[in-house]
Amino acid sequence: MSLLGCRVNQPTVLAFDVFGTVVDWHGGIAHEVDQLNCGLDGAQFARAWRDGYQPAMEPVRQGGQWVTLDVLHRQILDRVLSEWGRDDIDNATREHLTRAWHRLPPWPDSVDGIHRLATRFTLCPLSNGNLSLLTNMAKAMGLHWDCVLSAEVFKAYKPDPRTYLGVAEVFDVPPASVMMVACHPEDLSAAAGYGLPCAYIDRPLEFGVDVEPSRAELPMGTLEVPSITALADALGC
Amino acid sequence: MSLLGCRVNQPTVLAFDVFGTVVDWHGGIAHEVDQLNCGLDGAQFARAWRDGYQPAMEPVRQGGQWVTLDVLHRQILDRVLSEWGRDDIDNATREHLTRAWHRLPPWPDSVDGIHRLATRFTLCPLSNGNLSLLTNMAKAMGLHWDCVLSAEVFKAYKPDPRTYLGVAEVFDVPPASVMMVACHPEDLSAAAGYGLPCAYIDRPLEFGVDVEPSRAELPMGTLEVPSITALADALGC
Repeated sequence: MSLLGCRVNQPTVLAFDVFGTVVDWHGGIAHEVDQLNCGLDGAQFARAWRDGYQPAMEPVRQGGQWVTLDVLHRQILDRVLSEWGRDDIDNATREHLTRAWHRLPPWPDSVDGIHRLATRFTLCPLSNGNLSLLTNMAKAMGLHWDCVLSAEVFKAYKPDPRTYLGVAEVFDVPPASVMMVACHPEDLSAAAGYGLPCAYIDRPLEFGVDVEPSRAELPMGTLEVPSITALADALGC
Repeated sequence: MSLLGCRVNQPTVLAFDVFGTVVDWHGGIAHEVDQLNCGLDGAQFARAWRDGYQPAMEPVRQGGQWVTLDVLHRQILDRVLSEWGRDDIDNATREHLTRAWHRLPPWPDSVDGIHRLATRFTLCPLSNGNLSLLTNMAKAMGLHWDCVLSAEVFKAYKPDPRTYLGVAEVFDVPPASVMMVACHPEDLSAAAGYGLPCAYIDRPLEFGVDVEPSRAELPMGTLEVPSITALADALGC
């Protein structure tokens, strides 16, 4: 009996987390920061910037006004630069760096894996990244999503149920027909709590070579694979 | 001096109307109705169904609760069948017919033209069709949008300004950077009223061979072309 047959409902839609799961945010940001040649350590700076990510979304999660991730990325950047004593970095550089999140490189398996999966399933991102960020990023890497979904469509950040259940509603299918694909156990646990089957992509280098990702428990029945091409194999694509 | 140079701002985003502009709704619906072999005239039935389209969206436009076009299509279908004395048509057939709007065929120039334009611009639909309809339709014809935008994202039907201006907001550009592409002068007039440059695609067969489309005046400066491939030529793609 196949792994698929015994553990996972056959989905019709695959919803992908993006930062870390599809693209290497750490490598991309570290590289762009290093390229500035302004004395910032790219690898450390990338992690410091990303550390501000979850807290920055909290006001929206707690019922505050909707703000896109582009705006939050810039706010976090300004704060981190200030904390690092780098108020001298000019506005054009800050704008350029904020847009670096639109240019993140894919993991080597991402584009091929997603295009293979798209031959059998409907594929979309379900990311906290805004629509233009996800669109520009996909275009830059030659990646074709069937539809771009984002926290921006639902005006709610993951793990708000409106995001996971919103995908099911958009495609007019039960939550059990939407598989959440992510490298973050917390994202999958939230999705599983609302009835979505899950696939975990192991991304040991998400935070660079020096920092190992924390590994919380995965929801029961999660399909565990080392890459998106391995997910395509597992799902018969 | 080129047509483009003298009349149209150079856009960065092209937003496409879909029904009639990209796909042949009349031919697609007429064909599927004829295939039922149940005594309905496909060409006439398609027009009767589409006649209900604008009025069906009015309650939402006047501030009522959001309802997707899939739901409205089914409501119109039920009414038209009743008016045609065909209450005998069963639910499965009605569901099948309603989904025919997800399977509409492209005009011969659409897929090639859109893919050519996507080499230089960011392309999305801006249609009153819901996200799953637009996604399924594109997937069926092998069409890659960069991003799927829809009235459903803005919870407002064209010509509500939230749709036209919403595209500019999503892509963080001024309205002058979003070109609206449509075969309906009314759609273009609304878009132009909010500052979007316009391209008109002439679709003389939108309503079939027997009925000529009404031709209202186009907004000043509209780029007029006979096909989407001609638009790609005009915009240097």
